[in-house]
Amino acid sequence: MSDHPAIPYNSLLLFAESVFRKIGCSEEHAALAAESLLAADLRGVDSHGVARLSGYVRLWEVGRVNAQPNIRVIHETPSTAVVDGDSGLGLVVARKAMEIAISKAEAVGTGWVSVQNSNHFGIAAVHAMMALEKDMMGIAMTNASPLVAPTFSIDKMLGTNPICVAAPAGAEPAFVADLATTTAANGKLEILQRKNLQTPDGWVQDIEGNPSNDPHILKQGGALLPLGGDRDHGSHKGYALGAVVDIFSALLSGANYAPWVPPFPAYVPIPAQQPGKGIGHFLGAMRVDAFRPAAEFKASMDHWIQGFRNARPLPGQEKVLVPGDPEREMQQERLVNGISLLPVVIKDLKSVAEKLNLPADF
Amino acid sequence: MSDHPAIPYNSLLLFAESVFRKIGCSEEHAALAAESLLAADLRGVDSHGVARLSGYVRLWEVGRVNAQPNIRVIHETPSTAVVDGDSGLGLVVARKAMEIAISKAEAVGTGWVSVQNSNHFGIAAVHAMMALEKDMMGIAMTNASPLVAPTFSIDKMLGTNPICVAAPAGAEPAFVADLATTTAANGKLEILQRKNLQTPDGWVQDIEGNPSNDPHILKQGGALLPLGGDRDHGSHKGYALGAVVDIFSALLSGANYAPWVPPFPAYVPIPAQQPGKGIGHFLGAMRVDAFRPAAEFKASMDHWIQGFRNARPLPGQEKVLVPGDPEREMQQERLVNGISLLPVVIKDLKSVAEKLNLPADF
Repeated sequence: MSDHPAIPYNSLLLFAESVFRKIGCSEEHAALAAESLLAADLRGVDSHGVARLSGYVRLWEVGRVNAQPNIRVIHETPSTAVVDGDSGLGLVVARKAMEIAISKAEAVGTGWVSVQNSNHFGIAAVHAMMALEKDMMGIAMTNASPLVAPTFSIDKMLGTNPICVAAPAGAEPAFVADLATTTAANGKLEILQRKNLQTPDGWVQDIEGNPSNDPHILKQGGALLPLGGDRDHGSHKGYALGAVVDIFSALLSGANYAPWVPPFPAYVPIPAQQPGKGIGHFLGAMRVDAFRPAAEFKASMDHWIQGFRNARPLPGQEKVLVPGDPEREMQQERLVNGISLLPVVIKDLKSVAEKLNLPADF
Repeated sequence: MSDHPAIPYNSLLLFAESVFRKIGCSEEHAALAAESLLAADLRGVDSHGVARLSGYVRLWEVGRVNAQPNIRVIHETPSTAVVDGDSGLGLVVARKAMEIAISKAEAVGTGWVSVQNSNHFGIAAVHAMMALEKDMMGIAMTNASPLVAPTFSIDKMLGTNPICVAAPAGAEPAFVADLATTTAANGKLEILQRKNLQTPDGWVQDIEGNPSNDPHILKQGGALLPLGGDRDHGSHKGYALGAVVDIFSALLSGANYAPWVPPFPAYVPIPAQQPGKGIGHFLGAMRVDAFRPAAEFKASMDHWIQGFRNARPLPGQEKVLVPGDPEREMQQERLVNGISLLPVVIKDLKSVAEKLNLPADF
């Protein structure tokens, strides 16, 4: 993907940390933010990793990211809380919200936290997976700015609104399903753009709502399509799932929802008449032993996972994958061999370094 | 759809109730089971309504349904419970489990109940929607016998594993998303069979895993496909969602999972080496005011819903729908005009009446 040699994980982690410290984050927040961000690069979700670092800095420059937020619970019950992220980095706010969910799960079996007044939280998996080491299932979702047209709609009403569910196993690695509720997310379009290829049917539509195969169509006012693509292929289900994420993340918390979610690029104006605060997330933790002894559950998960691994693969396919397999394999590879970045991303990181007067040793 | 005049809802409800009483259900259980079953017919999910009544009776005949179950909590925390359905009708067991979820939500904000040792529960929506009148969000899911091949798999490893999420609104009707995690469920195949039409791409594959457009292919060893259809169109996401439903419903409860879930037709043998008990469900209830004042939440839901209704429809489409709209409109129509049944379903109901020596006044 790049002529530039792969960069060690630690170099990128330390650089991202230095950037977050430089814009005013505490040591603790800078470390959390960098770790959350780099988790995307490690897991192969390149669109959500250091490629976005300059975007976070620009949001801070225009005052939309508060580097020293007072992240606080504004309402709670034994199993629930609403957190006000105080315009902090979602990369940090979601981690703190998940800590609250986990501590509620420790007390009453499960914990559920809806978050308002936050920003982009990176990949959902990094937050959901915090639950695993506690023998809990973890759930993370977030809304996002409107790029997706519901079934039968010209207008873009929802974000790619991802859902992650992580479940611990025993001898097998954990089950981690992390999915945008669209047929394909933006990162997949970018790959096709670079390769000068068309999109398959059911990924995008143009500004008038006609089916399109142009991976550049979003820049021309087009839209991503919900998982399923069109009505005949179940797009009303992908739309419903994206809507559920919006309701959990924003309607329960008081964040902005639907087409009013603020955009990630700092130069795009925030929609008028905001009905809520910032963007919304939803984090959940369920103690496995609130249902069954953890050892029993994990033995069943191992049996479940082995069943899928042993399913007969289609002709031409090597094996049936379990959700989380490709990302875990990528992480193992990148921790050893480093992370390859596109020249345009490296250039972008170097310009961040220059702007903030930081060394960039890569 | 039928030359037979539409049958009033109440006639079918009373008939189903009489059938459930006749096989030994208590008055209360018979009423609950009939109401759960008929909710499918009212909402237009004809494959899950009275068309299945004879199937439930056959499961009772072979001893796989216990008409007088001792439905009981076998493990709990303040926000969770595991329920043993004692081989009862899922139509009743899931209602009882949802009552427990609601009562836990009243106490600690949310309630989550995983169910083992149950049977087919009808449509997910009827259980999830119980939460609405309490100003709670309701969640219902169930696993089901293996008809679905995961991405890259020849083997059928999952059921159609539906998810329902219901959220109360204020002036607007409630949001109710109820979806199988496949591109299309069995009922849609049956409609195409009757019309002698092919399926769209991405619905089914044949016994060797080749793409197929034959709506009869399941009878020849074929499989339904996860939402998305194939890898290029996101089937790994539909697969992951179906897997999540299986984990919540069966791995947390100790029910059977993956290809070991017992089949609905009584004549199909139960898989050998069952790892759990019966089939599994998962029910959740979240008090809206565990997050925000209910009036605020419901006002936001109204605003959200109106936003989607006012989105510009695609050329040739009348309007953008909100999840739950088509089913609610069908219910309003069928409560007034009655329920049209296919001749084959009427014949089946009459033969149940004859077998159990019950009047069938329709």
